[in-house]
Amino acid sequence: MSKHIDDFRRAGHELVDWIADYFEDTRKYPVLPPIEPGGLARQLPRSGPGQGEPMDRILEDFYKLVVPAVTHWNHPRFMAYFPSSGSPPGVLGEMLSAALNTNAIVWKSSPANTELEGVTMGWLRQWLGLPEEFFGIIYDTASTGAVHAIAAAREMADPEARLKGGARGLVLYASDQAHSSVEKGAIAVGIGRENVRKIGSDAEFRLKPDLLRRAIESDLQAGLKPFCVVATVGTTSSASVDPVAETAAVAEKFGLWLHIDAAYAGPAAILPERRWILEGAERAHSFVLNPHKWLLTSADLSAFYTRRPDILRRAFTLVPEYLRTGQDAVATNLMDYSLAMGRRFRSLKLWFVLRYYGRDGVMEMLRRHIAFGQRLAGAVDADPRFERVAPVHFGLVCFRYKGTDEQNQKLLDTVNATGKTFLSHTVLNGRYVIRCAIGNFQTTQEDVDEIWALVRSSAP
Amino acid sequence: MSKHIDDFRRAGHELVDWIADYFEDTRKYPVLPPIEPGGLARQLPRSGPGQGEPMDRILEDFYKLVVPAVTHWNHPRFMAYFPSSGSPPGVLGEMLSAALNTNAIVWKSSPANTELEGVTMGWLRQWLGLPEEFFGIIYDTASTGAVHAIAAAREMADPEARLKGGARGLVLYASDQAHSSVEKGAIAVGIGRENVRKIGSDAEFRLKPDLLRRAIESDLQAGLKPFCVVATVGTTSSASVDPVAETAAVAEKFGLWLHIDAAYAGPAAILPERRWILEGAERAHSFVLNPHKWLLTSADLSAFYTRRPDILRRAFTLVPEYLRTGQDAVATNLMDYSLAMGRRFRSLKLWFVLRYYGRDGVMEMLRRHIAFGQRLAGAVDADPRFERVAPVHFGLVCFRYKGTDEQNQKLLDTVNATGKTFLSHTVLNGRYVIRCAIGNFQTTQEDVDEIWALVRSSAP
Repeated sequence: MSKHIDDFRRAGHELVDWIADYFEDTRKYPVLPPIEPGGLARQLPRSGPGQGEPMDRILEDFYKLVVPAVTHWNHPRFMAYFPSSGSPPGVLGEMLSAALNTNAIVWKSSPANTELEGVTMGWLRQWLGLPEEFFGIIYDTASTGAVHAIAAAREMADPEARLKGGARGLVLYASDQAHSSVEKGAIAVGIGRENVRKIGSDAEFRLKPDLLRRAIESDLQAGLKPFCVVATVGTTSSASVDPVAETAAVAEKFGLWLHIDAAYAGPAAILPERRWILEGAERAHSFVLNPHKWLLTSADLSAFYTRRPDILRRAFTLVPEYLRTGQDAVATNLMDYSLAMGRRFRSLKLWFVLRYYGRDGVMEMLRRHIAFGQRLAGAVDADPRFERVAPVHFGLVCFRYKGTDEQNQKLLDTVNATGKTFLSHTVLNGRYVIRCAIGNFQTTQEDVDEIWALVRSSAP
Repeated sequence: MSKHIDDFRRAGHELVDWIADYFEDTRKYPVLPPIEPGGLARQLPRSGPGQGEPMDRILEDFYKLVVPAVTHWNHPRFMAYFPSSGSPPGVLGEMLSAALNTNAIVWKSSPANTELEGVTMGWLRQWLGLPEEFFGIIYDTASTGAVHAIAAAREMADPEARLKGGARGLVLYASDQAHSSVEKGAIAVGIGRENVRKIGSDAEFRLKPDLLRRAIESDLQAGLKPFCVVATVGTTSSASVDPVAETAAVAEKFGLWLHIDAAYAGPAAILPERRWILEGAERAHSFVLNPHKWLLTSADLSAFYTRRPDILRRAFTLVPEYLRTGQDAVATNLMDYSLAMGRRFRSLKLWFVLRYYGRDGVMEMLRRHIAFGQRLAGAVDADPRFERVAPVHFGLVCFRYKGTDEQNQKLLDTVNATGKTFLSHTVLNGRYVIRCAIGNFQTTQEDVDEIWALVRSSAP
């Protein structure tokens, strides 16, 4: 019985060193792997092995086949999408979670999971300046958080839906810059894509509260039932920040559930100088931010808060006999607040990260990335061949070469083909835009400078 | 910059040894921790640290505070709920996933993730004898799989719902033994609890296809729209196996989506002598089993298959501009088939497990657990003070002391309070029943014998 434990011990030590070396030498890898679709799959057997294989052969294939097919999200020059700042102490937490393999379906099924989730979500809530009555729960992603928020909003507006099914006519509002998960969640929950209103945004890509108010009034006049508003703090395209307080005022006027999607930019509110981004957030019904984006934690870990846990619970609780426990009256059973019944011990890695870096270490990282972003913004502004297309409050800089969309697309492809960085794109005001999202825990000023030099030298 | 990497290296080696020791000595821990609600939380600070803390202090608190508050799912005498057979090689895969921290939103965002997911899901599909056209994708849990199945079923029956929202009147069918996630999924998607029909089961807790047919006919006559049937292979209470082929025939007759929930028992179909449990499964529209239950893989990893990926995709695809790539026409973008957009590199641990143990190793484990279950069933049958209440096809044995429900509940509490095992309960035919679910990778015959001796000596 103990061969697999011996093998684990030996391979575990080897992999700890491999991981430490990987963190030290990440820059030696191309950020984007130079492979075509099918490039890895065709090197692997089409059928699983009949007999078990030696651990060394598995590790060798990992090094030689898997790693070269990986896009290195932990590379200091990975600047695509939003950053992931997964850090070494978080990896330790994940090792332990996998080994313990506990599952907080109910409190009793692993008290440590439920309680550490409560404790770490409390710490984070305090750092963010959110009210103490906000109840915190960890989901996998902000998309999953959006589905839960929308379902809770439906529960508040149409409690009959739980029993009888959703009636048509509920309407949800978000800016035209909101993440696609809002629309996807609305489709899943049975709201329908037609009933998602994309409210226009201003020159800085922020939701316009007066347009929101008018859209709600118009739907009410048409006999529809507005039920939910989503405000975004750090939109995906440009990291714009919706005016939360004014949006909250409109939501309150009409009695709608307000969900705040701060998946990317939320952590910045830990900084006093960025606290303004969450002004009014205490009035939200639900709020999500992703420590697996910009808070040094590897995926997946999305922090969801609600000041109406009673409604979230009503939307999701169903207790089968085999999960009733003697502590149901006095303990939190997290399955009552979640579509997924099983849940990994995710809070353990967050606990490692928050303790290891502390609030000061987190603030230092956030400020460093924001400074890099602002310096890059300045460099873009100083180059007459380029234009910046959105304000820079965080680590994301959106810019374009002053030429055609095709020229910008070609520029992006040229830069990414070098393997020296991975930038992504979006469309803003109908134009193709290049995004540089700074946020890896190892990124330096030199990294950003060299990426910008590469962009400049690759332009027509 | 490198202090946290040095700390990782040192602590990583320490934790590899701790984990190996933990696997070797798990039996020294009480399965259920002797703590009350709040017992861990009150030992931890109410606020996160301002300054970062030394790694050693975090590890010390992990050992001294967290571990004693954990329910040991990886304990060889953990027999509650369904087993988790999380194994050492899977932990290695998780370490690497956390370190690489890659995310297969689209193929390009990490080709290795998407391709290894396809490869491992293909291997598993072959071992299970499912048709080659079944498309596989990894979700976190079978509950999440149920939501996706129900949403795809709705897309097939009522394609307007995506645009206009769900209309009332869709009806879903499952046995009265089906998992609560089916009902929860139906509520979330907007079907409504009233429109979930719980079809009666037979003396062995199997769905009765004639009752299913009659329920569908009755709903059709009432002007309702039957759209989905869920059959269960290994129900949560008793691990009963619904007659899949006959259920499929009814579903086909009325054109309904058939989802098979084989979360627990599915892996047993790898054994020729248990292949019968999936007879007819090739006719299902979707199918789910959890390698994190009985296939040596730590949570979370749920394998979802569908022979209608076109419909699943139609239900869930939404491609924002910032995620369009040059490979969209030729590569699989997994976000198109999922509510959650982000996805951890889960297939890596499955690849480690399937390769390390091989099909033979997996079969040996499954057979060992089934033999333990059958021997325990025989012991129950041989004791006149106890009765067995369900057939034993796998590692789950359901039994009761021939006395009152209260006596059985007290018996269970007495046994669990020893810390020597953790059994759970259910209600079958209106009576309180004790469940012993055998499935840990380190469980021995001696473990099972001692648990049974403990139960006998604790009975009135």
